[in-house]
Amino acid sequence: MRVYDLILKKKNKKALTTEEIGFFIDGVMSGKIKNYETSALLMAIAINDMNIEETFDLTLKMAHSGDIVNFDKVSGTVVDKHSTGGVSDTTTLIVVPIVASLGVKVAKMSGGGLGFTGGTADKLQVFKGYDLNLTEEQFINNINTVGASIITQTKNFAPADKILYELRNLTASVESIPLIAASIMSKKLASNASVIVLDVKFGEGAFMKTLAQASTLAKTMVEIGKRAGKKVSAILTDMNEPLGSGIGSILEVRNAINVLSGKKNNLATVSKRLCEELLVLSGAFDSKTAKKAINDTITSGNALIKLQEIIRAHGGDDQIIARAELMPKAKFIKPIYSAKEGFVNQIKSEELGYVAGQLSGKKMGKIDHTAGIKLFVKLNTKVKKGDKIAEINASSEKDAENVAARVEDALVIKNNKKNKGKLIQAIIR
Amino acid sequence: MRVYDLILKKKNKKALTTEEIGFFIDGVMSGKIKNYETSALLMAIAINDMNIEETFDLTLKMAHSGDIVNFDKVSGTVVDKHSTGGVSDTTTLIVVPIVASLGVKVAKMSGGGLGFTGGTADKLQVFKGYDLNLTEEQFINNINTVGASIITQTKNFAPADKILYELRNLTASVESIPLIAASIMSKKLASNASVIVLDVKFGEGAFMKTLAQASTLAKTMVEIGKRAGKKVSAILTDMNEPLGSGIGSILEVRNAINVLSGKKNNLATVSKRLCEELLVLSGAFDSKTAKKAINDTITSGNALIKLQEIIRAHGGDDQIIARAELMPKAKFIKPIYSAKEGFVNQIKSEELGYVAGQLSGKKMGKIDHTAGIKLFVKLNTKVKKGDKIAEINASSEKDAENVAARVEDALVIKNNKKNKGKLIQAIIR
Repeated sequence: MRVYDLILKKKNKKALTTEEIGFFIDGVMSGKIKNYETSALLMAIAINDMNIEETFDLTLKMAHSGDIVNFDKVSGTVVDKHSTGGVSDTTTLIVVPIVASLGVKVAKMSGGGLGFTGGTADKLQVFKGYDLNLTEEQFINNINTVGASIITQTKNFAPADKILYELRNLTASVESIPLIAASIMSKKLASNASVIVLDVKFGEGAFMKTLAQASTLAKTMVEIGKRAGKKVSAILTDMNEPLGSGIGSILEVRNAINVLSGKKNNLATVSKRLCEELLVLSGAFDSKTAKKAINDTITSGNALIKLQEIIRAHGGDDQIIARAELMPKAKFIKPIYSAKEGFVNQIKSEELGYVAGQLSGKKMGKIDHTAGIKLFVKLNTKVKKGDKIAEINASSEKDAENVAARVEDALVIKNNKKNKGKLIQAIIR
Repeated sequence: MRVYDLILKKKNKKALTTEEIGFFIDGVMSGKIKNYETSALLMAIAINDMNIEETFDLTLKMAHSGDIVNFDKVSGTVVDKHSTGGVSDTTTLIVVPIVASLGVKVAKMSGGGLGFTGGTADKLQVFKGYDLNLTEEQFINNINTVGASIITQTKNFAPADKILYELRNLTASVESIPLIAASIMSKKLASNASVIVLDVKFGEGAFMKTLAQASTLAKTMVEIGKRAGKKVSAILTDMNEPLGSGIGSILEVRNAINVLSGKKNNLATVSKRLCEELLVLSGAFDSKTAKKAINDTITSGNALIKLQEIIRAHGGDDQIIARAELMPKAKFIKPIYSAKEGFVNQIKSEELGYVAGQLSGKKMGKIDHTAGIKLFVKLNTKVKKGDKIAEINASSEKDAENVAARVEDALVIKNNKKNKGKLIQAIIR
């Protein structure tokens, strides 16, 4: 078998066989297939697509290119959730404790944020001492004792995906439904939970800009999961505005604590829906009992206590959860006022995500977790001239001034409201 | 400018600007653009195509990536011809002396054969001592004194094309009209003759399998040449059977000498048509006077004498031209007989090209110029069982036996004739 023939087949819009895809990933892993061959095949795939059989074969082979987590020592069903990434998307810190507090075990591996999105791994660093790098044994132990654990992905987790993703990122083949689906699902299959719920975002602040793209991706991923023997569903959620009011690690942690304390908002709505899917697919609840149980565990304070337990089990300092006054505050806060009267017609969420990333100094290596943007408006909020619409939380006045115009430009005030769709557009099972 | 954005544009079916194409080729030449980036862009081009502006920009930039021949010291128009490659395609050795014998200067740079096609550079080695590697000064001098010179391409001749072609050949992006056109025409523009006539082959024994593909390629190349200020035309010729009766260096040299001695056959027809185009585009003849002049220079023996002069001017031994008995003969000749009665319905020309290449031992480094295949039939020839249809010329009996079945299989005898098209299908100007 020659990789040349595989490239030629895909260039000519033909489907690759299971054996050919196996040969490809084996060659990528051994280094026998060179980067210039891989990038050509990835481009041919990105343009000419893959059918579901090919996409499943690729995902499974990538999943098996490294370690697979073994949950034999965990009693009961293990569940997992994944978001395709958005702005102020803090559902993990809400969903994991709620589900765990209801007796369903959650094994979550989170990465750092990509591009304009924040990652759960970054946010957990707000809890001083939190150890993201547990061994598999410690991970399993935490799941058994506390009911949930959130760690980063191990180094040898779908390593084929790391190689392919790096090349795609250098050669413009990131945008490809089968390659995105295989990248996400290979890691989910390696994470090896038996229930997987996917939160697939679409809109300004998501990688998928349209509902149609997001829907195709969601259907592809659900099908891959099913073929791999998992119970899996996906919810399609609107990301045309940030999900929460804060963008930045501490602001988002605070949002999560608020929802776990009973606050009702978009972040709560999406988080609860994800919980419901996980609980129902786990077999422990039906839809009706799940909804009630979710509200009860919040009202009783059990969900928030579970978050504290999870943090402590990882060696993290959890006192900021109970005592909000201990939460570190930004050194400099700059308010942004509306320059005119009207409605918030557009929120450039991706831009706000990039600005928040810049404020945190993430690219410079030293992260200021207090930095970020706090929004006081949502899409279609009516504002008067001079109303405070946002606050920039920064390490210095200079940092805040540097991005002030960008934040103002990202909140577009017009005379008319925007035609807004539903927050949760569909559930795909 | 980043190559990433160029790849993304082409992935999304957008056209690249002149500046972007310049940036790409500069980066390929300097090494700043890596092979994995180049192969991804080439694949995107191969799938999503290029418009004529992009193709022209690419060709011109590739042409200027290395040396450009300077004909200032040649008086009068300099002409050049190019064949896209076929089986028993020996027109160069006929066209160059005919045109030169009529006072029009020919500057020809030939490569070795690609794949199943024989190259003029290989055939010239039949004339012992022939020096293909003249300096530019010697090349110009030969053109001025003899009227023509045939050399190989210098090392620094459209070097960008060499890099791109090598990568395309490794990553399955060879088949692409704009990339093929740019590859051929960049070298023609670097060769820098002011008249260029292209022989674009289609059919079983050509790279372009269909007339439609060949026609698109021909139109693209003619347009590129015109935009570069050249006088250029293309003829579309049928390559569903080998152009001459012999396949292999010495057999093809013999075919050329026969045509220059007055023999009329398909090889003569195509060669004369190419001569006519060159003579008319050079401005020295009109169509009617060109036809007569071509026949006259053959009849008078001047064309054959000119071939001898060209060979001698390159230090080659030309005595085999006048004395056919000195032509080296193959060590072993194996005749192939028809197994049944019928018509030659198909000649698998590409296969015969590969078999002839194998017989010559070209891949092993040591070439036997006497090796090859001689055909005694053409398409639609009526044969009886036991008629000699071919002869295998080989270095040994073993070599001949090894390929006998393949040669027999390549000459398909059926009860019916094949519906055969015209030898020259169109002229594109």
